[in-house]
Amino acid sequence: MKYSDRITAMQASPIRKLVPFALQAKARGTKVYHLNIGQPDIKTPQGFFDAVKNFDSEVLEYAGSQGIPELISALQKYYTTYDMHFEEDEILITNGGSEALLFTIMAICDPNDNLLVAEPFYTNYNGFSQCANVFVNPVTTKAEDGFHLPSKDIITSKINAKTKGILLSNPGNPTGTVYTREEVDMIANIAKENDLWIIADEVYREFVYEGLDYTSFGNLKEVEDKVIIIDSVSKRYSACGARIGSIASKNKGLIAEILKLCQGRLCVSTLDQVGSVELYNTPAAYFTDVNEEYRKRRDVLYNELMKVDGVICEKPTGAFYIVAKLPVENAEDFVIWMLTDFNKDNETVMVCPAEGFYATPGLGRDEIRLAYILNEDDLFKAATILKEGLEKYVELAKNKELASTEA
Amino acid sequence: MKYSDRITAMQASPIRKLVPFALQAKARGTKVYHLNIGQPDIKTPQGFFDAVKNFDSEVLEYAGSQGIPELISALQKYYTTYDMHFEEDEILITNGGSEALLFTIMAICDPNDNLLVAEPFYTNYNGFSQCANVFVNPVTTKAEDGFHLPSKDIITSKINAKTKGILLSNPGNPTGTVYTREEVDMIANIAKENDLWIIADEVYREFVYEGLDYTSFGNLKEVEDKVIIIDSVSKRYSACGARIGSIASKNKGLIAEILKLCQGRLCVSTLDQVGSVELYNTPAAYFTDVNEEYRKRRDVLYNELMKVDGVICEKPTGAFYIVAKLPVENAEDFVIWMLTDFNKDNETVMVCPAEGFYATPGLGRDEIRLAYILNEDDLFKAATILKEGLEKYVELAKNKELASTEA
Repeated sequence: MKYSDRITAMQASPIRKLVPFALQAKARGTKVYHLNIGQPDIKTPQGFFDAVKNFDSEVLEYAGSQGIPELISALQKYYTTYDMHFEEDEILITNGGSEALLFTIMAICDPNDNLLVAEPFYTNYNGFSQCANVFVNPVTTKAEDGFHLPSKDIITSKINAKTKGILLSNPGNPTGTVYTREEVDMIANIAKENDLWIIADEVYREFVYEGLDYTSFGNLKEVEDKVIIIDSVSKRYSACGARIGSIASKNKGLIAEILKLCQGRLCVSTLDQVGSVELYNTPAAYFTDVNEEYRKRRDVLYNELMKVDGVICEKPTGAFYIVAKLPVENAEDFVIWMLTDFNKDNETVMVCPAEGFYATPGLGRDEIRLAYILNEDDLFKAATILKEGLEKYVELAKNKELASTEA
Repeated sequence: MKYSDRITAMQASPIRKLVPFALQAKARGTKVYHLNIGQPDIKTPQGFFDAVKNFDSEVLEYAGSQGIPELISALQKYYTTYDMHFEEDEILITNGGSEALLFTIMAICDPNDNLLVAEPFYTNYNGFSQCANVFVNPVTTKAEDGFHLPSKDIITSKINAKTKGILLSNPGNPTGTVYTREEVDMIANIAKENDLWIIADEVYREFVYEGLDYTSFGNLKEVEDKVIIIDSVSKRYSACGARIGSIASKNKGLIAEILKLCQGRLCVSTLDQVGSVELYNTPAAYFTDVNEEYRKRRDVLYNELMKVDGVICEKPTGAFYIVAKLPVENAEDFVIWMLTDFNKDNETVMVCPAEGFYATPGLGRDEIRLAYILNEDDLFKAATILKEGLEKYVELAKNKELASTEA
């Protein structure tokens, strides 16, 4: 039987495809520190669990397709703390940020349309686009520039008749980059001049370090009819297993169109919504501690990494990821080697090759993504192992090269 | 700003678009019995809530993309009671039956492909198809035939080069029809001879009345590489608010392809999965009572309906819906009239016009769908009101016609 072209063209998750090597390492009794996935170890606020436990209806009924009013209202209140003011009919609750992205892409793009996306990007942007027969139109950013955006001219040169919008994550996954006010304004201008939608994936909005200024695309009045804000409780409140995301836009017409897709899938988990009301009611002080914790972790990981000669990486200022360019030819080979050939006191580290975060063929082959989602002690151990492994791998490669030159 | 063609082409939910008329009736103080939606009033098995309350991890983590092993294993066990034997890698847990359908359509169809669908059909089949740029290719069934399938010749005459599969719900929503063994075999033969997938939406599998024989498409060895079984806990265990569906197929390659889509959306609600393990562990005796309850309700509603001259409807044998052809010109007008102009002791009934369940223009205009999801007393009251309303409406229409003939 034949499968569809669109699905055979999709790549399997680059984050997950190396898992078998980690399983083999574990089977040999080697401890593996996972810096390859974005599953935080921070406690989910207790309010979530309490609300779920206190749910006392005898029938677990459908919720409304838009989302439960209590959650929409909690989200409205949350947004006002960022000076964003959405009305009830400007917000939809979705099955995670994932569904929010898929529905948004379907609502603004037809098959063969494309979206400008700054690469390296969250790999599922490509997956959601592909299954909707939409192309990612990559705008390349570089480790040497801290993955900040290129000039307006370079970006606009990528726009064609089929370009419907610009999709960005800010703070960035996988880069950890936080766009400056100037970059946000530049994107707004490009959208205005070319009549493009702006899909702003801001699920890491709170994870900005050292008091750095953060500008949400939701704060730009002049393009408010073009801006679509994607959010999720997953990372914000360490509640990845609650599939609660959202779409917010001042473009009420767009929300009404996407509501049709929401009606098609009937509703989002009732219990997860009930719990998430309490997440969005979590006092802002919660973020102060979480933030400080992540900032410390970033420093631990970044400092160790920078001790290796030839690693290129600007210190990221947001989210909980680092993309680093390594002095290796093929980062995937290195990642596998760490799992198959290297250990320190029977411990090793799994990281994620970054090639899958690029749409331009060949880019990112020498880069990795690291998630700093372990506690400081474990992370320090992991960072040390990674550093030593990398140094050894580079040395081996050099010796091999020497040997072949001498031969 | 422009929306996509695919989303503007989607119709708003025909089930939900008359809601404002019901709200107005309620605002006037009129009680409205809802026979228009499929939200059962049966208690959700307590095991679901207990399992959720006993969940005691501090971090609500991502589940695996395929679904939690405990739920897959519970589902395997459940299927064996129907003599279906799926291995672990032949099952995927999804965000409700809705996502199961959308992902399946994406995995077997490219844009401009089509699926044979027996109409009247569950209206969201059209929605899922449209957003994936796939066409519903309708095979018409009729109230007069109890919505059983037409001949093999008629069905095969609809197949063209772009036809990729046959999508059926059995027992049927909205028809309540249970296909005979002969019909199931005929579909299997058509699929075999024309190399088509069979998407079998069997979420009402347990709702078959009076000991009638039921054949699942999962029981047909000779087409097992073509059959995709869609399931959901929503109706089966009255747990609509838990968004837990599934895809099962002996075609491991297909499951591996769809897993890519599952990886894209990361996972399904962890808590809903934990609860649903207990749903699938519910003793089979549960269905005996629920079944008997629904059978009684069907009889109450069907018997009242058949008292009205000119109503055409074979007694349905499954699910909890009835589609009836009414002696009216436009069923939607009648539905609205019931909400705006009719009441009995300040009570009225809301039903669903059936036109939205057809893809062929003009069909179903004189039909309605009724869901028998109220307790027997309420349902009897509702059925009586509906009968009286319908009789009055028909009489008024006749008088109007007479008046215009005499004029």
